[in-house]
Amino acid sequence: MSVRRIGNLRRLTCCLRPCSFHQVQPAMASDFQSQWARRPHSEPPPKAPNGGKYKIAVCQLCVTSDKETNIANARDRIEAAADKGAQLIVLPEMWNCPISHESFPIYAEEIDAGLEVSPSLAMLADVARKKKVTIVGGSIPERSGGNLYNTCCVFDRNGDLKAKFRKVHLFDIDIPRKITFRESDTLTPGEGLCVVDLGAHIICYPGAFNMVTGPLHWELLQKARAVDNQIFVVTCSQARIPSADYTAWGHSTVVGPFGEILATTEHEEATIFADIDYSELDTRRQNMPLEFQRRGNLYHLTDVTRKELAANPMKQGSTS
Amino acid sequence: MSVRRIGNLRRLTCCLRPCSFHQVQPAMASDFQSQWARRPHSEPPPKAPNGGKYKIAVCQLCVTSDKETNIANARDRIEAAADKGAQLIVLPEMWNCPISHESFPIYAEEIDAGLEVSPSLAMLADVARKKKVTIVGGSIPERSGGNLYNTCCVFDRNGDLKAKFRKVHLFDIDIPRKITFRESDTLTPGEGLCVVDLGAHIICYPGAFNMVTGPLHWELLQKARAVDNQIFVVTCSQARIPSADYTAWGHSTVVGPFGEILATTEHEEATIFADIDYSELDTRRQNMPLEFQRRGNLYHLTDVTRKELAANPMKQGSTS
Repeated sequence: MSVRRIGNLRRLTCCLRPCSFHQVQPAMASDFQSQWARRPHSEPPPKAPNGGKYKIAVCQLCVTSDKETNIANARDRIEAAADKGAQLIVLPEMWNCPISHESFPIYAEEIDAGLEVSPSLAMLADVARKKKVTIVGGSIPERSGGNLYNTCCVFDRNGDLKAKFRKVHLFDIDIPRKITFRESDTLTPGEGLCVVDLGAHIICYPGAFNMVTGPLHWELLQKARAVDNQIFVVTCSQARIPSADYTAWGHSTVVGPFGEILATTEHEEATIFADIDYSELDTRRQNMPLEFQRRGNLYHLTDVTRKELAANPMKQGSTS
Repeated sequence: MSVRRIGNLRRLTCCLRPCSFHQVQPAMASDFQSQWARRPHSEPPPKAPNGGKYKIAVCQLCVTSDKETNIANARDRIEAAADKGAQLIVLPEMWNCPISHESFPIYAEEIDAGLEVSPSLAMLADVARKKKVTIVGGSIPERSGGNLYNTCCVFDRNGDLKAKFRKVHLFDIDIPRKITFRESDTLTPGEGLCVVDLGAHIICYPGAFNMVTGPLHWELLQKARAVDNQIFVVTCSQARIPSADYTAWGHSTVVGPFGEILATTEHEEATIFADIDYSELDTRRQNMPLEFQRRGNLYHLTDVTRKELAANPMKQGSTS
């Protein structure tokens, strides 16, 4: 029962750690060594809280060049979503900052120095606590040790920082005469994956595809991740500003574990809501027992972060 | 430069071995240990033959309950495709046999006993030699050692059997009141992956999705495999026969390495053609250097078959 926040849909196949299945494992699976297809083994999911259902809100925000405006707007949208019953609220990638190399250092905050010097995260902590909601805080540019990172912070219902994740796969694209953007020119990639236990059972991607890859890949990749892993996928983009340096595609979406769209929107600023029903995971995994059909004797995917955690459990719970 | 034939789109992320990239590796990639994200390392692709272009034909066949009719029809369609200039021709999954548990043992052929007792494959070998085309022979039920397999055979332009692949991920689905089919009730899964070098640079899936998963997953998964691996993907289904036990979705398709559809069809019997241009692979991989962004220090995918082949090269070239 974890929110998985990976910064780049394009690399997700390598980062996913779906939960084990609830159903009885067929006898044949032992021949496949299906349990060895993921190393370390998949962990059984914790029990679903709240009767197995909750409401999620995805805030597709219009990000301006004024940081204070962005923070105030995000607060308004989060509060409105909470007032409508959302228990988990997701923000876009770079929700406090235009997506441009010039902006990243200017809008960056030193997260490790504490909330008093990080106005964007201080707002998230405050509104999470006051509204008793969990917030997957999209991302903001983070300054640390002379580097800039694209960093996602997660706050729980008490306003406590539960996890910090630095995007590990930066977005570099060069399609002449269409789009050229190399995130790695100014940002530094993170050095670890991160799973945070919020009881959510979703993979959550704050992202910002563009006008070239957006129509081709945005919906495609989130549906594929949902179907391959039989899990909910939530994406949250900035709203589109046609005059921006980097024009975001928008179309924030919630996808169910069979690849079905549960909620989506166009490119303007909007908040979308979806009811996440855990029983849907059980149903789909019983419909098609993919996990037991994996062939650990033919291939396997190793999660180095989790392997190291298994060897040194003291590391668990780190937020950086 | 290989045709990769994996029997199940749903598992492909675990089976793919995309070629290495042609471009110069950025300096940063060494920090990522990107070369370690796939174990063994990706191999550089052989040079493209024929000026880097060739024509592929995908024969979406109407499969009847009469095996001789199926063989004769497949021959006609292959010959017609060859006459139109196709150099590589792909057939559907179970092209000689209705998809039903009752049919598999009746239509099965003992491939290892030779072409004289395997009329379906004898036809493929004959037409490949006479028309000087390469054939990815979809699949037929194979009888071997008391088991039945879902087996794909590939014939080169000389009519020689180049490879035999037994589907490793059988299709089991149980959606009450919609579709229930457990391929594993009668078939036995294969025990190895298989790459055959035909100079094609494609992943080829003879498949047969149904009326439930077809609309949701068929196009989705093939596009996702193409985009994730920046490679051509070719799918070939049986044509739809509404009265059949298992009603195939149809919609055979050729997808380019950016997820774009190059050729597709509806559900009736049809042959589709596409021009495969290798330079498109270079372009897309230069546009987005995904392979160099993999994080071998955070995760890695191990291909057991290839690892064993690397340790014991004498195994290479086996066709079973």
